[in-house]
Amino acid sequence: MLEKIKKIGVLTSGGDAPGMNAAIRAVTRSCAFYNIECIGIYRGYQGLIEGDFELLTARSVRNIINKGGTFLKSARSQEFRTVEGRAKAYKNLKDAEIDALVVIGGDGTFTGAIHLEKEHGMPVVGIPGTIDNDINGTDYTIGYDTALNTVVDAIDKIRDTASSHDRLFLVEVMGRDAGDIALNAGIGAGAEEILIPEEDMGIERMLDSLTKSRKSGKTSSIIVVAEGEKSGKNIFELADFIGENLTDYDIRVSVLGHIQRGGAPSCYDRVLASKLGVGAVEALLRGETGVMVGITHKLVTSVDFEVAIKGSKPLDKELRRVLNITTI
Amino acid sequence: MLEKIKKIGVLTSGGDAPGMNAAIRAVTRSCAFYNIECIGIYRGYQGLIEGDFELLTARSVRNIINKGGTFLKSARSQEFRTVEGRAKAYKNLKDAEIDALVVIGGDGTFTGAIHLEKEHGMPVVGIPGTIDNDINGTDYTIGYDTALNTVVDAIDKIRDTASSHDRLFLVEVMGRDAGDIALNAGIGAGAEEILIPEEDMGIERMLDSLTKSRKSGKTSSIIVVAEGEKSGKNIFELADFIGENLTDYDIRVSVLGHIQRGGAPSCYDRVLASKLGVGAVEALLRGETGVMVGITHKLVTSVDFEVAIKGSKPLDKELRRVLNITTI
Amino acid sequence: MLEKIKKIGVLTSGGDAPGMNAAIRAVTRSCAFYNIECIGIYRGYQGLIEGDFELLTARSVRNIINKGGTFLKSARSQEFRTVEGRAKAYKNLKDAEIDALVVIGGDGTFTGAIHLEKEHGMPVVGIPGTIDNDINGTDYTIGYDTALNTVVDAIDKIRDTASSHDRLFLVEVMGRDAGDIALNAGIGAGAEEILIPEEDMGIERMLDSLTKSRKSGKTSSIIVVAEGEKSGKNIFELADFIGENLTDYDIRVSVLGHIQRGGAPSCYDRVLASKLGVGAVEALLRGETGVMVGITHKLVTSVDFEVAIKGSKPLDKELRRVLNITTI
Amino acid sequence: MLEKIKKIGVLTSGGDAPGMNAAIRAVTRSCAFYNIECIGIYRGYQGLIEGDFELLTARSVRNIINKGGTFLKSARSQEFRTVEGRAKAYKNLKDAEIDALVVIGGDGTFTGAIHLEKEHGMPVVGIPGTIDNDINGTDYTIGYDTALNTVVDAIDKIRDTASSHDRLFLVEVMGRDAGDIALNAGIGAGAEEILIPEEDMGIERMLDSLTKSRKSGKTSSIIVVAEGEKSGKNIFELADFIGENLTDYDIRVSVLGHIQRGGAPSCYDRVLASKLGVGAVEALLRGETGVMVGITHKLVTSVDFEVAIKGSKPLDKELRRVLNITTI
Repeated sequence: MLEKIKKIGVLTSGGDAPGMNAAIRAVTRSCAFYNIECIGIYRGYQGLIEGDFELLTARSVRNIINKGGTFLKSARSQEFRTVEGRAKAYKNLKDAEIDALVVIGGDGTFTGAIHLEKEHGMPVVGIPGTIDNDINGTDYTIGYDTALNTVVDAIDKIRDTASSHDRLFLVEVMGRDAGDIALNAGIGAGAEEILIPEEDMGIERMLDSLTKSRKSGKTSSIIVVAEGEKSGKNIFELADFIGENLTDYDIRVSVLGHIQRGGAPSCYDRVLASKLGVGAVEALLRGETGVMVGITHKLVTSVDFEVAIKGSKPLDKELRRVLNITTI
Repeated sequence: MLEKIKKIGVLTSGGDAPGMNAAIRAVTRSCAFYNIECIGIYRGYQGLIEGDFELLTARSVRNIINKGGTFLKSARSQEFRTVEGRAKAYKNLKDAEIDALVVIGGDGTFTGAIHLEKEHGMPVVGIPGTIDNDINGTDYTIGYDTALNTVVDAIDKIRDTASSHDRLFLVEVMGRDAGDIALNAGIGAGAEEILIPEEDMGIERMLDSLTKSRKSGKTSSIIVVAEGEKSGKNIFELADFIGENLTDYDIRVSVLGHIQRGGAPSCYDRVLASKLGVGAVEALLRGETGVMVGITHKLVTSVDFEVAIKGSKPLDKELRRVLNITTI
Repeated sequence: MLEKIKKIGVLTSGGDAPGMNAAIRAVTRSCAFYNIECIGIYRGYQGLIEGDFELLTARSVRNIINKGGTFLKSARSQEFRTVEGRAKAYKNLKDAEIDALVVIGGDGTFTGAIHLEKEHGMPVVGIPGTIDNDINGTDYTIGYDTALNTVVDAIDKIRDTASSHDRLFLVEVMGRDAGDIALNAGIGAGAEEILIPEEDMGIERMLDSLTKSRKSGKTSSIIVVAEGEKSGKNIFELADFIGENLTDYDIRVSVLGHIQRGGAPSCYDRVLASKLGVGAVEALLRGETGVMVGITHKLVTSVDFEVAIKGSKPLDKELRRVLNITTI
Repeated sequence: MLEKIKKIGVLTSGGDAPGMNAAIRAVTRSCAFYNIECIGIYRGYQGLIEGDFELLTARSVRNIINKGGTFLKSARSQEFRTVEGRAKAYKNLKDAEIDALVVIGGDGTFTGAIHLEKEHGMPVVGIPGTIDNDINGTDYTIGYDTALNTVVDAIDKIRDTASSHDRLFLVEVMGRDAGDIALNAGIGAGAEEILIPEEDMGIERMLDSLTKSRKSGKTSSIIVVAEGEKSGKNIFELADFIGENLTDYDIRVSVLGHIQRGGAPSCYDRVLASKLGVGAVEALLRGETGVMVGITHKLVTSVDFEVAIKGSKPLDKELRRVLNITTI
């Protein structure tokens, strides 16, 4: 264990995700366990620049493990994107005698951390907290499992109406670059089709498929559409396009939107956040820096920030195949 | 009790609402209790015209009290709006020896029932089933309580993000003509402002109010907007308008949409549906027709269909006052 | 308005109930609205005796409307049951210049308030906060609607197993003196039988009824049992008794217990708490004391504490009848 | 692919688990995909003996993916434990021309399958469906993730009361032989201590720990107790023991019981069930038998039934460590 780490700062940055509070709690408690002071930094990198700090003790984080959002708040910071901004941030860290940093967020968060670490030698370890599951080097990101449950719960409700009225619903879910939410929630909600960023399966093929299922006796259907899907139409244009081509379908659109980000985290996300929170502090104590701790088959592992944010994860083709089979 | 009623038909019509299945169950079980045959009519008035009937026994309605939607399905019927369509429907009822009808739905449903009753002397009793609570002569409509819980649950999730990011959210909820959902869910979700169809409070006033709360230290806010609110702008235009005038607010829009219609009914809606289902059958047995059974201070009462659908309910001004006080 | 009220104290006492926080929030915000100082008193009457006070502002009660329990905490106080204890409490109120008190709780809470008011002339208004709905002078108590939803949600889960295994489940719900929860949740969950404190229907009759339903083809059943039911057997003895007499039933027991008290309040409870919180402060300002504010057919009304706690509410016989009909 | 498989039977056995319906759906749809007939067998091995079969088509399994329990029902079968019973079962399978079997359940289910396969050469593949996660050769069993969410949701509710009243709650969760639920839900719910079957940490040590946390300022606590924990006391005796030794604690007991088995499956369980349902049919088509398909780091794998049911899974010691650190 490195003797020199006496004070660790922790912040959340980027879009909030359920389980971020559980991660902050685990970081704080791990610090207490190892007799390290823990400093909460409010509003992400912007708060770092403004010196918006507060001492966190084991008691400060009571009764937050089940709360959505992040009590440390999050914010975008234009200033932190500049060399000057990061210099200011580093000065605040030094003034507060913070020896190392844990940053919780997604790829933007880790990009900021890379700069801070390279320019100032600040030890930083990251924790993947984003509902999008679009980070390499970890099987799951914190918040993703909860978001999936929120989405299937919402589509279960929508299906009540779809079935009652024999309708076709297009349901838009989050995922600008990654189809993970659409694919998993699509299977989970028993959707007939999914549209995702990773593939352009051609909407003609979808029309064929819908025509076929209508003939086979299906009267209602759900199509899950990821934000970033590749047809080139937005979801309302898609609905119009289908309506023009398949006149016996009564079509509706539902955009799930921001409800997907909030809510009490699932048990899985709370446990994952607890493991990664402990793992991040212990990684710093082992002398690691410039890495993200992630989960790989139940084990906490470290990968370089560059690996974590590089390129996009490949689509789970096996899961794609499962969807095709189970929607026959 | 009228001896002549030996067979009762039941249908759901209009938008589906949680608790409709519980109402069908209660109608069916009441028929069994009084030794009357119960016939389920699928797809509302359209199924009536097409003779899409099925015998329902006490066993047919097992394990449906907790299911959203309506297993009898619902549909719009252009044909039933014509004299010819209704004549066809009546012929089907006579052919099936159905002596009386229970219709579950909203004002469109009751309007159809008025015609059928007047033109053919068909005994009909209505049950208010709609999430909008926009029917006169009943304190609550079936589905309304569930929809309120769905809305506050969704806004609780959105507030996690609003608080984490210090944002202002505009959340659109159902209610083209009635602000009941917006007003109650607005209070329940702790919204700072509501915009409803019943009043045009002027968006200038809202700007003032938002400016004031920002000054008083509020960093995040929720505004609940009913679909039919009176500003003349849609919700995205409203967001733009606020953004242009209050530049220190980070604004987002969320349209809750169809999730508000579905889901397992609340206990209140299940009990209400059970009471009204029993009440409807007993009203028919007492010889009533052309009426809707509703709930008034825990009592099941009957009102003429004309009263039920006439004009709009006045806004609950006391509740408006409570909102103003509790959002200070 | 009475000019002399400048400072109001608020406390919660007795068993916690979902919506208590919403009520505290409404009291606090109403005080702010009327330019009155609001003092939160921790741990009920015990905190009153110990002077455990804190100033509450409109900001102190942000983001608590959706939280279960009570952030002011609750406690039993033996000392407050004595003349000396209450004198100490009164002295603390005077020392803190608190002019009037709002107490949120059930009959024990109101009994304490009666003494304080009579012995020291302290103006006190009560708000009914208890999941049991066993208070006179109000249609609903805060927390009751939420508890009903929690119970039907739990029984929905239990029914999955009951149906899958063709079992009979006895489910114990809260209600030592009042069968309201058992009756309403029994209807809502589609239970076949209920056992409640208000009537001893004889367990022989229940055996007959169960035998009949098994013969009619029912393979699984739920019986909802209120804690205070009148058979003289506890729920495990009841299960044994049924098992000995009806050998073709596979019987299980589930005691729901404390989960019934917690959780995010339903929209109804949040709105009710908001209305009553405003109502309590305004009652004090009108010069009322020794009364509880309750809800009667959507209106906030006042009744003397003595009326509120006197005797037990009669069982809703009409609802009993609805249960019998819908479980045929 | 083996040409000879033309008809596959599917059954659920043992305790029901959320996601079993999703697994049946996936088996049925996979059969349809590969042009195999699918026969549903009701009430597990008992229905196999009684020939309680029904043809399942892709349409038969619509709208069940989100339902708890198992629509094929489950039952214990004494008769199937005998050679004669299994011979009868095999004869029924042959008479119905069923070429292979998919069995969904836990270790008892797989033990039955081993006998059927060995005695009659019946091709059988198993799917792990049990909330207990006590099967080797798979990271997760179907239903386990949902049960964890149900447990943390229930403890979140209990914590509302624990915090409001400064109480210590002992909460009993499922797990006769495995502490997985207690350990994961304990971390997820922020419990201070857990008692599990895999270790006897000594209740003296727990008393010390509770004394310490009371001194450090904790006023309320949750202890999660697995059914099969090793202290030799039942949960009520444990509560009494703690109460006698730590008189400043106000202690309550809550036994979660059967609610842990039911409810709509989580997204994870729906996806897992879909993968394993497809995997089981494809394993049979590849000629595998006597194996269970499980999930290992996102991959569907096969293990011999003997391996699946042999001995108990070791406790996740790393997770135990995370609990200790995060409850400091």
